[in-house]
This record gives sequence, structure tokens and C-alpha cells, in this order.
Amino acid sequence: MTVHERTQVGIVGAGPAGLLLSHLLSLGGVDSVCVETRSRAYCESRQRAGMLESTTVELLRAVGLGDRLDAEGLEHDGIYLQFDGERHHMNFRELTGGRWITIYAQTEIVKDIIAARTAAGAAPQFEVSNTAVSALDTARPVLSYTDARGMRHVVTCDVIAGCDGFHGITRRSIPGGGLTMLAERSYPYAWLGILAAAPPSTDEVIYCRHDNGFALHSMRTPEIGRLYLQVPADEDISRWPDERIWPELATRFALPGWSLTSGPVLQKSITPMRSFVAAPMRFGNLFLAGDAAHIVPPTGAKGLNLAVADVTALATALIRLIRDGDAELTAAYSDHCLERVWRSTHLSWWMTSMLHIAPDQDQFESELQLAQLRHLVSSRTAAASLAETYTGYRPLRFDPSTRLDAARLWPSVA
Amino acid sequence: MTVHERTQVGIVGAGPAGLLLSHLLSLGGVDSVCVETRSRAYCESRQRAGMLESTTVELLRAVGLGDRLDAEGLEHDGIYLQFDGERHHMNFRELTGGRWITIYAQTEIVKDIIAARTAAGAAPQFEVSNTAVSALDTARPVLSYTDARGMRHVVTCDVIAGCDGFHGITRRSIPGGGLTMLAERSYPYAWLGILAAAPPSTDEVIYCRHDNGFALHSMRTPEIGRLYLQVPADEDISRWPDERIWPELATRFALPGWSLTSGPVLQKSITPMRSFVAAPMRFGNLFLAGDAAHIVPPTGAKGLNLAVADVTALATALIRLIRDGDAELTAAYSDHCLERVWRSTHLSWWMTSMLHIAPDQDQFESELQLAQLRHLVSSRTAAASLAETYTGYRPLRFDPSTRLDAARLWPSVA
Repeated sequence: MTVHERTQVGIVGAGPAGLLLSHLLSLGGVDSVCVETRSRAYCESRQRAGMLESTTVELLRAVGLGDRLDAEGLEHDGIYLQFDGERHHMNFRELTGGRWITIYAQTEIVKDIIAARTAAGAAPQFEVSNTAVSALDTARPVLSYTDARGMRHVVTCDVIAGCDGFHGITRRSIPGGGLTMLAERSYPYAWLGILAAAPPSTDEVIYCRHDNGFALHSMRTPEIGRLYLQVPADEDISRWPDERIWPELATRFALPGWSLTSGPVLQKSITPMRSFVAAPMRFGNLFLAGDAAHIVPPTGAKGLNLAVADVTALATALIRLIRDGDAELTAAYSDHCLERVWRSTHLSWWMTSMLHIAPDQDQFESELQLAQLRHLVSSRTAAASLAETYTGYRPLRFDPSTRLDAARLWPSVA
Repeated sequence: MTVHERTQVGIVGAGPAGLLLSHLLSLGGVDSVCVETRSRAYCESRQRAGMLESTTVELLRAVGLGDRLDAEGLEHDGIYLQFDGERHHMNFRELTGGRWITIYAQTEIVKDIIAARTAAGAAPQFEVSNTAVSALDTARPVLSYTDARGMRHVVTCDVIAGCDGFHGITRRSIPGGGLTMLAERSYPYAWLGILAAAPPSTDEVIYCRHDNGFALHSMRTPEIGRLYLQVPADEDISRWPDERIWPELATRFALPGWSLTSGPVLQKSITPMRSFVAAPMRFGNLFLAGDAAHIVPPTGAKGLNLAVADVTALATALIRLIRDGDAELTAAYSDHCLERVWRSTHLSWWMTSMLHIAPDQDQFESELQLAQLRHLVSSRTAAASLAETYTGYRPLRFDPSTRLDAARLWPSVA
């Protein structure tokens, strides 16, 4: 059986991008339908990013999603950079004049938004199948899917938002020639990540360059650590039993007088490292946001923050288009987002290249890495430049009022 | 016939490094002998660098070499960065709180120092042959050479300074294992440089990234332009008649409402692009300085400035060693210099990579270049970081008084 429906914005994907978009649109009085192939339980438990730029935190607070974030998030002034056997604190709050980073897992943001949408009577449709988008270059694009009970839905929309990640269907539904840029870079290494019942051994995150490879010490809560090791790109996870992981982490983070607290490993996985940018982020009335349009390696913690930036811009643009009939911001959406996307793509590539040991790395490259790290910890100007981009580049603006001012929201549009 | 002689410092090479070293040593009452295989006329005419960091200018003024530099040098507040069809001014003076750059050709500095040394009755020995250094790891290293009249000299020294450039004999006289680092990078392009009787078409230097390749518009005097084009690494100069050079320069620098002034080409040459660092910069009582120890691609204008920084540190260290019997600064010489060398090596690599088009460059690399350039012209913090390193990183200190304070001169030694 097939039901024909109507909404203003069809949203494919209930990750943080799709969920936040549906939430923001509702604040501006725009209806949406959000569909997701995975289960709610899966979406609320998969381990992904966990570091929020202060600009992301401020946006979430401003749109009513800050309560649990403020109660449970771990606010950090900066990060540690470790190399050559020394650990250096980079105080981003001081370097940027007030910006910071907050540790709060993506899964928690997902839970918060699902709860808010459910309370509003507009819960996402989970466990859908055969999702498709069509008529993208018309004024009435169509989102179709089969719901968890087997009913087929054909939803006529004003616009469709592709928030379904790198492997999703929306980007691949764009016909040949619709994307003029597909820029990509693979890295010759991966991250072995663990979630462990081990209280963090440090108050703030440690980025560590060691001759054995990169290591990252992060955390989820005061009881749960999140730690990563650089491993070869094609590594078999079975080669990393817990008894091998902890000593290798201890070796890479080693400092006199400091020790790493270990504990039971709760989850373990290998993440490949890739940079990817598809552009433009619009085809007809399909708008891409988040991982559907671009991927960064995790080193700069930019993926989730970019998704939030994309949908903040997209929600504003769509409210203005659908409610006010003004297409100025939707026309500017892709260019507006891509500036930040490339800034973050560069930061992620740079931090990745500076901190990892490539299999074929020569002495020139190694010394260049160390020269950059030494510069970052000895020049306030260089440190400030890293701090500025790491903590969020430019503020995110969302204003669902009827008096939207394009020039104020997006200075580059003016 | 062979004469046996004695000096305190034997200096191999009468380029800017060797000449400035002999001048600085004399200010501290230390004797030197400076030998050079080329003729004085050659040294005073070969076209090399021409952009001085303000820290270099301040050092030259402080040691009595500033008169003609101040009269004839062209002081610039900053540079232009051109890409994507737009030209942006980077005001380094404002970004650094007062530092600048000065256009004054290396050949002019060479003339000034040769004149000063000659006036002091200590002119370099030009057109020597069969130069050799020996007994480097003893307290009495030996410099030997045949002078222009055919007389062989065997000069017993306290120390020998290798200021004889990348192709010189001093670095190659260090026995195997004496250098623990030989880091190198070749670039897949070169610079075709011209000196032209064409008044500069711009008030300050233009660094230009164009899809055809990099171009640089510099100048020597208000009447003489110095311009460069990126060409393939193995380019044959005969493929670039003047009639091809000017239109290609005009294409790369093109801007609406602006035009490039052409004129007779006075000199034309192709410069390969290489990064090279040998370390340590000392073996026994041989000290390397300038191009003998390290080479940078010319994009960051660092080569001459690094040579000046090296010999400023070396002169201070040698005066302290030879006159005061204190080896603290000579022991620290290599590490002290290498910090700046790697900072400059990174800047030179970075500017080179960001502005040139590699033969196998893909869309990701091109967009990464543009993202960095856009960031530099839109973030004051990013611009300040470039300005800081470009104009000279840290001040150069030279004080030949008897009350040298190591901690003040080289903070890292303390």
C-alpha cells in the first residue's frame, strides 16, 4: 500500500545533521519529514565524534538544546600538543579571547534532538527502507520510502535535504555533471579507536606525535576514556588485542612522572582517514549537508562541527525561501558553506599531515613536522591561528524571526 | 713556493656570509683570512637574492653597513598575494607592529662589505685555487690555498668557517658520520628569472598563483624590474625568448585596469628549486654558515637572510671563544641556528607548495592551495603568522663588547 503525502522539507538521514535541521526548521515554522534506515537504538549508540567547537555549543544553546550539554559536557580551555618527549598546553581560550571546546559525544546530541522532536510530535521515521529521491530539478521533488511497518510513502516536498552521510543515496542521486567537484585524498594510515572504562589520565585532550605514530587521548565522561592509535591503513583489528593496545598507548604518551590509566575496553574499531569534498552542495531542490557532501579525517575534530554549520545555514536559507519566498540565501548556500568546508578541510589535512608518520616518510618530512610543532608552541601568533580555526572559525548565526538580515547572517552575501 | 701563516678564523667563501663574518669578527677584535675562488667582479655582479627582512636591515645598520642600504634600498610595508584573479595587499608592518622588508640586492651588500674590508686593509683574497681544509677536529685546523699570483698559503687557524655555498668544499670535507642529518627535497618546477630595464609596474612585490603556474614581480631599483615565471624543472632556457616571456608574465599577472610594463631583458637564468639541510652545522673546529649548510627554494626570500642570521650568531660565538676563552656559544651555535633554519625551511616549503602548480596536481591540492590563500587574506590571525616569519622571525643580536650576556643574546641557551 502506498500513501501520498506532502511536506515542506524532506530530510534523508537522522544523524546529527538531519535531526538538527528538522529541529531548526520547526523553530521557523517549516514542516519536515525525516527518515532514517537505521534503528533509533543504533543512532543513539554508535560512537562518532565528541568534540564541539564553542561556536557549535553556542548554537545548540541558542536553539534550546543546551540543557544536558551544559550539565554533562566537559568544557576545555584547549588541548595538549605532545612531541619530542614534551607536552605543551595550547590555551585556546586565552589565544582566541574567550573561545573554547566542549567534550560531549555526538550520540548524546542525537539523543537530545530525538527527544525534542519526539516531544514535539515529530519523531523521525527510523528503520525505513528503499529510500529514493526524484524530480530533484523541479519545484516539487519527491522523497519516497517504505516505513518500518511496510507501508510505502511518496512525499512531495518543496526541497529535499541530503543528510545521509558519505555512503548515502542523495549525493549519488545527482545526475552526471550535477557535481562539478569531487576532490578526494586518502591517507596511508588509519585510527584504531577504543572506548574504555578508564578515567581520563589528563584534564584535556592530548594530540601526540611519536616516532611509532600518532596517538590521541580524549574522553567521553569523567569515567570513560576515548583513545586512538595510528595504525596502517589496511590494519586487521584482530592484530590489536587489548593487551597490545594499552602498552602501545603508554609508549606513545610516555612522560616522566605521568602515567596512563588503563581499564576494560568497551568498544574497538578502525577508522580510515579520508578527505572528500563534493560541490556544489546543491542540485536543483536537493541540498546536501554534512558528510553527504564532505568528509574530513578526524584529526581536527571538524566533521560534526561542519555538519552543524551546514544545517544552521541551510535551515536559515530554507525558512527564508519557504516561509518568506526569498531565494537569496538558498542561492548562496553552497558557496557560503564551502568557504568553511575548505578552511576545515585544510586544518584537518594539516593537523593530520603534521602529526602522523607516513610509511614512506623521509627525514625532510619528519623535520618539517617537528619544525611546525615547535613553531606552534613557541610563537603566540602561530598558536593563535590554530586556536582560531580549531575553536570554530566564525560564529554560527541562526535567527528564525521574520526580520532575517542576509548581510548580517552571512557577511559574504552582502 | 709555500708560505706558512697564522690567523684566528679562516673563512672559505666571500659571498655575503663570509664577508659579513669577517666584518663582524673585526668589530670584535678577531682576525680572519677570507678566500674566494671567484673574481671580485664576479662576486659583485652575480644576481642573487634581493629582499631583506627588517631584522637583517637592523643588523646591517647596527654594524656600520647601513649607509648605502638606507639611501638606495626600497622599503616595503608588505607584499601582494594574487590568486583567483584578485590581488590582495598584506601589510606586514601593520600585522607585526612595525616590521617591514627592504629591497636591496645581495650584490650591493657584497660591494658594501668588500669596500669596508678593503678600507680596513683586510680585503678578501679573490681568485684563489686548490682551496682545502684539514685537521678540522683539532685545535689548529688548517686552511690552504693558492693565491691569484700562484703562491701557496698554509694558514693555521683557531677555527675555520665554511661560507662557500652549497657546492663548496667545506661541507664535503667533513668525514663520514660527521653530519647526522642530510634532509633534502627537490621540487618539480624551476624559476625562470629575468632582470629587465623595465620600471616596476607595482609599488610592492607580487606573489601570484595562476593556473599556468607561479609568477613573482619584484624589483631591484625604481628603473630595474626582477621578474620570475614558474617553468618545468628541466626547462631549456632557449625555449624562452623575450617575446615569449613578456606575454606569459602579462597573462599571469593580469588584472582589470592594470598593465605590466615591459622592457629590454638584461639577464635571464633558470633557478632550480631545492630544500636542503645539513646538520649539525659544526664539525670539530669547522663551522658551516649559509648555503654551505642549507638551501631553501627562493619563494620565501629566506636564503640571504638565513646566511646573515647564521654569521651573526657565529661571529658572536667566535669572538667569545677566541677573545674570552668561553666556549658556551660555540657549543650552542648549531642548535641555535637550526631552529631558525627549520622555521625558514618550513615557510619556504609552504609558500612554494601553496603558490606553484605541480605537474601532477589534482583538484584536492588545487583547492587546498586556494583555501590557504583565501584564509591568509581573510583572517588577520593567519596573516599575522605569515607576516611574523616573513619579516624575520626573531631579532638578530650582535654585541662585540666584552660583557656579552649569553642568556640575553640567545634566550634558548640560558
